[in-house]
Amino acid sequence: MARLVECVPNFSVSKEKDEAVFQGLVDVAKSVPNCMVIDVQSDGNHNRCVFTIVGAPEAIEEVAFQLTKKATETIDMTKHQGQHPRMGSTDVVPFIPTMDVTIEECVEISKRVAKRIWEELQVPSFLYEESASRPERRNLATCRKGQFEGMPEKLLDPDWAPDFGERKIHPTAGIIAIGARIPLIAYNINLDTSDLSVAKKIANSIRAAKGGFQCCKAIGVMLEERNIAQVSMNLTNTDITPIYYVFEMVKALADRYGARIIGTELVGLTPGKALLDCAEFYLKLENFNYRTQVMEYNLL
Amino acid sequence: MARLVECVPNFSVSKEKDEAVFQGLVDVAKSVPNCMVIDVQSDGNHNRCVFTIVGAPEAIEEVAFQLTKKATETIDMTKHQGQHPRMGSTDVVPFIPTMDVTIEECVEISKRVAKRIWEELQVPSFLYEESASRPERRNLATCRKGQFEGMPEKLLDPDWAPDFGERKIHPTAGIIAIGARIPLIAYNINLDTSDLSVAKKIANSIRAAKGGFQCCKAIGVMLEERNIAQVSMNLTNTDITPIYYVFEMVKALADRYGARIIGTELVGLTPGKALLDCAEFYLKLENFNYRTQVMEYNLL
Repeated sequence: MARLVECVPNFSVSKEKDEAVFQGLVDVAKSVPNCMVIDVQSDGNHNRCVFTIVGAPEAIEEVAFQLTKKATETIDMTKHQGQHPRMGSTDVVPFIPTMDVTIEECVEISKRVAKRIWEELQVPSFLYEESASRPERRNLATCRKGQFEGMPEKLLDPDWAPDFGERKIHPTAGIIAIGARIPLIAYNINLDTSDLSVAKKIANSIRAAKGGFQCCKAIGVMLEERNIAQVSMNLTNTDITPIYYVFEMVKALADRYGARIIGTELVGLTPGKALLDCAEFYLKLENFNYRTQVMEYNLL
Repeated sequence: MARLVECVPNFSVSKEKDEAVFQGLVDVAKSVPNCMVIDVQSDGNHNRCVFTIVGAPEAIEEVAFQLTKKATETIDMTKHQGQHPRMGSTDVVPFIPTMDVTIEECVEISKRVAKRIWEELQVPSFLYEESASRPERRNLATCRKGQFEGMPEKLLDPDWAPDFGERKIHPTAGIIAIGARIPLIAYNINLDTSDLSVAKKIANSIRAAKGGFQCCKAIGVMLEERNIAQVSMNLTNTDITPIYYVFEMVKALADRYGARIIGTELVGLTPGKALLDCAEFYLKLENFNYRTQVMEYNLL
């Protein structure tokens, strides 16, 4: 069984605005052994791109550094324009435990990468999310507030010294947010009602902040084009709060309000185990071990 | 997405009775690139071993030949004793489509391997299961009847010329059954009753032969140590007859006889898709594509 970490670094360049620089990053991402580029998204309006890379912890550490090096050498933030908030050529580098790796190990990876980036590239960084050195730095938006242009002043604020590096940005590469992040599953449940208040009441009942499931964030939203209400969720740890917990609870609460579940959706990449856990639950599987019994896990 | 074939060759040697010869086969199995030895089972009483290997079609074809070559060189059937029926040093070589490969392609693989084994090793073979040249050869037990000792005579029977090779066995390696096989999922459902007739009636209702599901073979058995009845099934194609079909139908039928499902079990390796299909069904997932949305499938 492979140990796997996911890294989803964001860079302040787009294929649409500067294809050569963008392609340079793609080439670097694909050049590091023992990791795989699963997805690359580029947005011209944001003038920004996002890589999704999965691989062995050591390989992920290396590819994160090499990409940052390339971005530092090729992206000049003094000339960058785009709609999305950003503070560096390499803007944010999250590490996400994926298989047989703990969040603590990802925190260590993030700190080693941040240290190396400062020592070898002289780009400072904030540690955010699980790696944060103080509570207010957990939030990426808080770290990034002021953006590239406001950072020189922000770094002089007593509360905003970088976690790695001196109190000044890299002149062209700015500053980076680096950290470990718990894997999120974005899961939405659609109801057969156009009454938004039903979805909101259900969301209120199941979310951690209101006495619901420990690892569930939920809101009620309208899907205007379908005229139905949706419970939109982030599940932050499906080992603790499995998908079938929220499905069954939403089903029961919807019933109480006279509504039914008509469909659900997973947004983006989901670890297979989160779904195999649901198959195990609904099929009442005894002594099931996905690592030995599911063929694909023998190949990873 | 990788194209994968599974091969489960059986050899007439065991770790318990001849570790050196057994290890020779293991070394060959591990020496072929682009395939992976998932499991090796050895049984001293049967004096037999079974490899489970998964890999690219070309690699599987090569490893099947190389293992047969090694077995032909190192196992002498004139000296073999064991409880399990057998007719060759390499006894049976099934090819099973696993991912993005058709059963027809596996039939072609089996024929190419059988041809090469005859041409380069002078070991004859019967094609069986989906590769069979006539209906009675589909069944492995029918092909193997007479075993190694009775084969010289059997091959002279007008009905039993080998599909590849002359009408005589290899003097020390015998003859082989080679063929393509549809992947089987062995799935059992346990009931909260000690009345075997309930399991038998349910099995009768769901199996293909009795008007039930197209790709389901089922019998009722007693689990003596737990004193409960079980519906024991082979699902021969879960794309056509998904696991949740049989689960839901057994649930409904058990209810009709006043019984309940208390647990189920998967025996051996199961393709992940068969279980992801169940998660999709029970969670009512919309627009779900396991190939793009389940992380592990992006790594294969």
